[in-house]
Amino acid sequence: MDVSLIESTIASQPIGGVLTSQLIAVGDVFQQHLASSDREINELCRHIERYRGKMLRPTLVLLSGLAVTGSETSEDLDKKHLLLAAVVEMIHMATLVHDDILDESEVRRGGATVNSLNGNEVAVMLGDYLISKAFHLCSTMGDPSINLALGEVTNTLCEGEVIQLHRRNDMDLPEDVYLDLVSRKTGSLIGACCRLGSVLSNGTEKQCEALDEFGRFMGVAFQITDDVLDLFGETAVTGKTVGRDLDLGKMTLPLLRLRDELGSQGRDEFDRVVEQRDRTGLQKLLDGSQAMESTTNSARQMVEQAKSRLSVLPEGPALELMLQLADGVLTRQS
Amino acid sequence: MDVSLIESTIASQPIGGVLTSQLIAVGDVFQQHLASSDREINELCRHIERYRGKMLRPTLVLLSGLAVTGSETSEDLDKKHLLLAAVVEMIHMATLVHDDILDESEVRRGGATVNSLNGNEVAVMLGDYLISKAFHLCSTMGDPSINLALGEVTNTLCEGEVIQLHRRNDMDLPEDVYLDLVSRKTGSLIGACCRLGSVLSNGTEKQCEALDEFGRFMGVAFQITDDVLDLFGETAVTGKTVGRDLDLGKMTLPLLRLRDELGSQGRDEFDRVVEQRDRTGLQKLLDGSQAMESTTNSARQMVEQAKSRLSVLPEGPALELMLQLADGVLTRQS
Repeated sequence: MDVSLIESTIASQPIGGVLTSQLIAVGDVFQQHLASSDREINELCRHIERYRGKMLRPTLVLLSGLAVTGSETSEDLDKKHLLLAAVVEMIHMATLVHDDILDESEVRRGGATVNSLNGNEVAVMLGDYLISKAFHLCSTMGDPSINLALGEVTNTLCEGEVIQLHRRNDMDLPEDVYLDLVSRKTGSLIGACCRLGSVLSNGTEKQCEALDEFGRFMGVAFQITDDVLDLFGETAVTGKTVGRDLDLGKMTLPLLRLRDELGSQGRDEFDRVVEQRDRTGLQKLLDGSQAMESTTNSARQMVEQAKSRLSVLPEGPALELMLQLADGVLTRQS
Repeated sequence: MDVSLIESTIASQPIGGVLTSQLIAVGDVFQQHLASSDREINELCRHIERYRGKMLRPTLVLLSGLAVTGSETSEDLDKKHLLLAAVVEMIHMATLVHDDILDESEVRRGGATVNSLNGNEVAVMLGDYLISKAFHLCSTMGDPSINLALGEVTNTLCEGEVIQLHRRNDMDLPEDVYLDLVSRKTGSLIGACCRLGSVLSNGTEKQCEALDEFGRFMGVAFQITDDVLDLFGETAVTGKTVGRDLDLGKMTLPLLRLRDELGSQGRDEFDRVVEQRDRTGLQKLLDGSQAMESTTNSARQMVEQAKSRLSVLPEGPALELMLQLADGVLTRQS
């Protein structure tokens, strides 16, 4: 989702001012906690500051905290919300830095990736530093249940990544395995942001569970639109190398839908374009199929599923904004 | 330190039986907590089981727990000691897996490294999985102060790694920077094992602090002997690729001592052998110098420093074994 879309969505809402000022405070916590006595570390952290564009996960922590009570003032947010928001952003950034190694990506947010600029070695360690700092900051909250919950999420996230790696070039990947993968890789953290944000505001169990599901559905939809952008986006807009999924043999939803639509008769041609990383051939097959439409429809259904979960929340500007952010997943260009 | 040396040292002591059975219990916790519902993950974890050879860090957690009271029965160890012991071993294993990527190592403990066998991508994610599992297991202890302490250690550890990477091929590396590096990379975790092991046994502040220092000194000595083994060891004995430090432009203590002994007159030749990775030339320079002796002396002094810190402990078999393990650092062959 592009920064400007999130920013304009937030700004358009009555709750926008509160949220913006709280996000600035989260950014401060984030920066202060990453600061090191070592120049080298600080330079690397400054470089990846630019990755911190969307702040979608911190936004969802804060919004979920406000949404369970229908509040619209920052007084109903605890210091813990700010800490948690910074923690989840650090975890997210760590996954970006390590993902870029896995994907051999050279560009992110229009800038060189750490791996391309400083080598894989530095990127490995910087990602580790971010994970470590995230757990450390989380521990300063003094609430073991939050540590435990985030530990579970990062376990799940890593499992998703390992399975995805093992499934590269698996052209028989079943769609349910793909969806499970994406739910672990992207859905789990976004779900936890929403759930823990509401836990910290003493949301009811029903609310916290519903918010977790909202985040999971939104995360999966987010990943599906990511798949689409990797096929049809432009680096200048998405800010990252496009076409990487095919290059890396990642089977994404548009490809799975295309494969299933082509059936056994078209399977040889499908296998050929994927094996040969033949983008033009793939585009031609996609253009002649319903795969993209079907994929987009699924993303839309996921967003609807997500939004339906929010019926447990009281009316209010936070709920309103969450609904809009969910819709924004479908129109994101980056 | 070779497995057999630790094992025989432990077995020779009256406390050996207690310790061995507790280490088996730690191994069970370790395995159970790493188990996943995914076959791929479990296969990787089985592969790295062999890295878990020395169990030096878990041993020190348990011994420190016993040593503060002079106890020799496992009844004086808490369930938390076992959990912590498994946690520090997971953290250690994570650093090994990621270190092997950084060092492009192909062999560890006589087996293929994860990076060489499954690619850097899988090794990145497996290391992340281990870190995540470690923090998660730690969180199950429900004691935020332990989480916080370990978070500080992993921050320090990552900083050490990043600085070391930046200092590769820095032939002007000052010795104090090297010692700081090693203290962060190796000393911090071993120090924490000793400190937290005693914290869990309600050791006095003085005891916990002294045990931390014991571990740090022991860790630095351990790393220095590692430097020596990388120059003079044999893969068949050390179980890992030797000569990697020079290949990677890592300035280790023997090299720093050689450089300083050669002085300005010998500097050109020193720079040449290091830049050209000329092992034969380097051996010749080392043979004609006091560098190895001086390095070994420093390791010995560190071990003496370490042992002197244990004067805060009551007499007993745990203390006895800790003193022996410290001495073992100097005779290790792997």
